[in-house]
Amino acid sequence: MKQPERVIYFAGSIRGGRDDHAIYAHIIEKLKKFGRVFTEHVGSADLTAGGESGSPRDIHDRDLNWLKSSDIVVAEVTTPSLGVGYEIARATEWQKPVLCLFRAGTGRTLSSMISGCPGVMVREYTTVADTGEILDDFFLGLRRDGE
Amino acid sequence: MKQPERVIYFAGSIRGGRDDHAIYAHIIEKLKKFGRVFTEHVGSADLTAGGESGSPRDIHDRDLNWLKSSDIVVAEVTTPSLGVGYEIARATEWQKPVLCLFRAGTGRTLSSMISGCPGVMVREYTTVADTGEILDDFFLGLRRDGE
Repeated sequence: MKQPERVIYFAGSIRGGRDDHAIYAHIIEKLKKFGRVFTEHVGSADLTAGGESGSPRDIHDRDLNWLKSSDIVVAEVTTPSLGVGYEIARATEWQKPVLCLFRAGTGRTLSSMISGCPGVMVREYTTVADTGEILDDFFLGLRRDGE
Repeated sequence: MKQPERVIYFAGSIRGGRDDHAIYAHIIEKLKKFGRVFTEHVGSADLTAGGESGSPRDIHDRDLNWLKSSDIVVAEVTTPSLGVGYEIARATEWQKPVLCLFRAGTGRTLSSMISGCPGVMVREYTTVADTGEILDDFFLGLRRDGE
């Protein structure tokens, strides 16, 4: 019998700032090797820091439904974002495996709420090309843990 | 018998950026009228975006213990912050009343994860002087709800 497809929730900054949207798009492309990505719009150049139209409550509930029904959460956490922090807390509340990717060399330091959160794996990278190997290792580790 | 003192957790950006630390300090001063504020260091000019020293896990666990044992959470959410978003999610998971203060006129828009979260009350303000009345209303409402 065919295995159900793995579903991945990708989280990146929207209203916190869109400086890294092209990096999000690259990571989302790489993630497609491992499953279906619910939140492909997060990488779109058309999505600005004004966010999506629609009521905040509808957006909140839609995103949380996606998050709840996903198997794995991957977040890019270099640009600070209230929404991404919120989603990481919910994902760990619901015991989803969470991988956070943090870009070195920007002068930023990552929040201790994220880097010190049990249930979150943080991996630093330098260029987006490095993230391929990090993702390979992370998904291989999940298989070993009997995901 | 004397009522036990109300305990307030104040959340503001640290590693997300310290542009608003003076505003946090003003809000913390106003909050002292309503109870004990656990996290007074968040308003300190000495605390930089490098954050506190110490292991991330220790900082995470200390802050979550403070959050868990607080009665009310007040967050300033103008500067995007992963840690503040994370703390708001935990506070609503634990059914704490949460007030978020968002400054108008900065060109930013607030994350839908915060403005659309049931259990979070968002109030816009223009100058820090306005926050006094917002806090009065919020704490009066809590008393009416039989906090």
